Amino acid sequence: MHSEIHFQKLIEEKLKSLQLKQDPSSLYDPIRYMLNLGGKRLRPALLMMSHELYNNETENIIQPALGIEVFHNFTLLHDDIMDKAPLRRTKETVHKKWNPDIAILSGDTMFVLSCQLLMDVKKEFQNDVMQIFFRTAIEVCEGQQMDMDFESKHNVTIDEYLDMIGRKTAALIGCSMHIGALCAGAELSDSKHLYAFGKNLGIAFQLHDDILDVYGDAKKFGKQVGGDILSNKKTFLLLTAFEKAKGKDLAELKKWLNATDFIAEEKVASVTHVYENLSIRNDATEKMDYYFRIALNELDAVNVSSVRKSALLELAEKLMVREK
Amino acid sequence: MHSEIHFQKLIEEKLKSLQLKQDPSSLYDPIRYMLNLGGKRLRPALLMMSHELYNNETENIIQPALGIEVFHNFTLLHDDIMDKAPLRRTKETVHKKWNPDIAILSGDTMFVLSCQLLMDVKKEFQNDVMQIFFRTAIEVCEGQQMDMDFESKHNVTIDEYLDMIGRKTAALIGCSMHIGALCAGAELSDSKHLYAFGKNLGIAFQLHDDILDVYGDAKKFGKQVGGDILSNKKTFLLLTAFEKAKGKDLAELKKWLNATDFIAEEKVASVTHVYENLSIRNDATEKMDYYFRIALNELDAVNVSSVRKSALLELAEKLMVREK
Repeated sequence: MHSEIHFQKLIEEKLKSLQLKQDPSSLYDPIRYMLNLGGKRLRPALLMMSHELYNNETENIIQPALGIEVFHNFTLLHDDIMDKAPLRRTKETVHKKWNPDIAILSGDTMFVLSCQLLMDVKKEFQNDVMQIFFRTAIEVCEGQQMDMDFESKHNVTIDEYLDMIGRKTAALIGCSMHIGALCAGAELSDSKHLYAFGKNLGIAFQLHDDILDVYGDAKKFGKQVGGDILSNKKTFLLLTAFEKAKGKDLAELKKWLNATDFIAEEKVASVTHVYENLSIRNDATEKMDYYFRIALNELDAVNVSSVRKSALLELAEKLMVREK
Repeated sequence: MHSEIHFQKLIEEKLKSLQLKQDPSSLYDPIRYMLNLGGKRLRPALLMMSHELYNNETENIIQPALGIEVFHNFTLLHDDIMDKAPLRRTKETVHKKWNPDIAILSGDTMFVLSCQLLMDVKKEFQNDVMQIFFRTAIEVCEGQQMDMDFESKHNVTIDEYLDMIGRKTAALIGCSMHIGALCAGAELSDSKHLYAFGKNLGIAFQLHDDILDVYGDAKKFGKQVGGDILSNKKTFLLLTAFEKAKGKDLAELKKWLNATDFIAEEKVASVTHVYENLSIRNDATEKMDYYFRIALNELDAVNVSSVRKSALLELAEKLMVREK
């Protein structure tokens, strides 16, 4: 069994050699740029590892794996426009380097390219692969819309937040696992367990991200620690704090959330201090562990020898202790 | 054989009863709004008429026909953002009524919905239907990018313009014809002739639009006559005028294209006057007729009785004399 590193390298190479047209260059240059910004390539690696549980041949599965990565990058491209993000992996975002119109249209084109890559499986699997892929694509759009709605919505509940990250982030990870198993001819019950493994791992992954944003090591994290706090992002931590806070802590939270003129470090330190008063880190870690355990139980239920599953298990454990 | 009016009505009804989710409403309300703005429903009608050349049953073909219409509306939605258009069919555009972020994401979701509808054909046709659909979707994106590039590009040639409208507008009309025939089990040679019929009809259709923009009857046209002239849009007429104009006519054209402060009616009248000096209307009509004749030859080559083809022939002729 190969580790994720093997597949990540393979995907990186295949993305570099992906045959994209030249003209119109204003359409295809941004696509090439976006696909070469790097990244963990986690979703296609998981797709290939899921496939390898049943089948040692990887040649047949590269195209749909690339499709998942191209789709993921399409969503990042359009999300960056909506978030007005200036940077993506320390480089200028497409809508900044070119313009928003080009970013919209390159994104649309990437979405079509991802569909073409996903269709490139054995005919017998096409219908199932495309159905799960489209269903997931809808969920990803819904999740992004919910995330945007949350910015101006009061009283977002923790359940709504978990539902949102389940669609925006975790569904595509589940979908990748499902497609990998499907194309290896796995039993439907196994595909479903692998989908659930990916989906729950994805939720745990996002909760870990929420924790890292506050408690990460600035040197290792690669992003500004406290970024979510500064932007009043309704993460699991903030929503839990609002649910638990009373009296002085609640007043302090509200003060900082409504502050328009503040010193960044001071806001981060003060909100983090409230989190500490309320043991929010502990709550988030417990919730993360909860989803992680569900994920592991689902992996356990997959009808494949433990030896074959060890690479996936190791990757899952690694994701839960990563520092960036 | 049914005329296009029968199918247009059918599509209109089916669009109204399309089962769309409610939540998140900020995602699905704009989709419902966009799909209920009306329109000619030309592409799905053509798809169904193409199918009816071979098969009197229409039930099987409604979903992909709706898919083509949803896709077409997705492209309009995203184009409206890029064109900063305030109105679509006399109503506010989605990015104005809501905002550009919602317009991007609703558009993305419409694209996925269109894929799901197009997949809803007999399994034996799925691969071919999706391949032609995705290939066409790529062309539509390329055509839109070329159209945007032309705004700032000097020396756009007439061939480049025809290539652009072939992708942006005509390819989807060809694709609709092709899918209709395909799903009726037509021979590949017939499907190809019907694709070519649709594509060439689409080019003639766009050239007719270019002519109507200048020579249409304001009362019947429904849009501002001379809109293309006012926005310096590089249509077939303007590009041909630039190719032919010399001396005073060329100077006049350049003057109006560079003018920043002018009375709209005066610009339209003056540029139209240059067109008359150069017989541009005649050139455009000849070019339109050229593509229309190719379209008719392709329809002629379809291996179906003339009686069955008469509805399509009548529709094609009607499109060439329409006044809006």
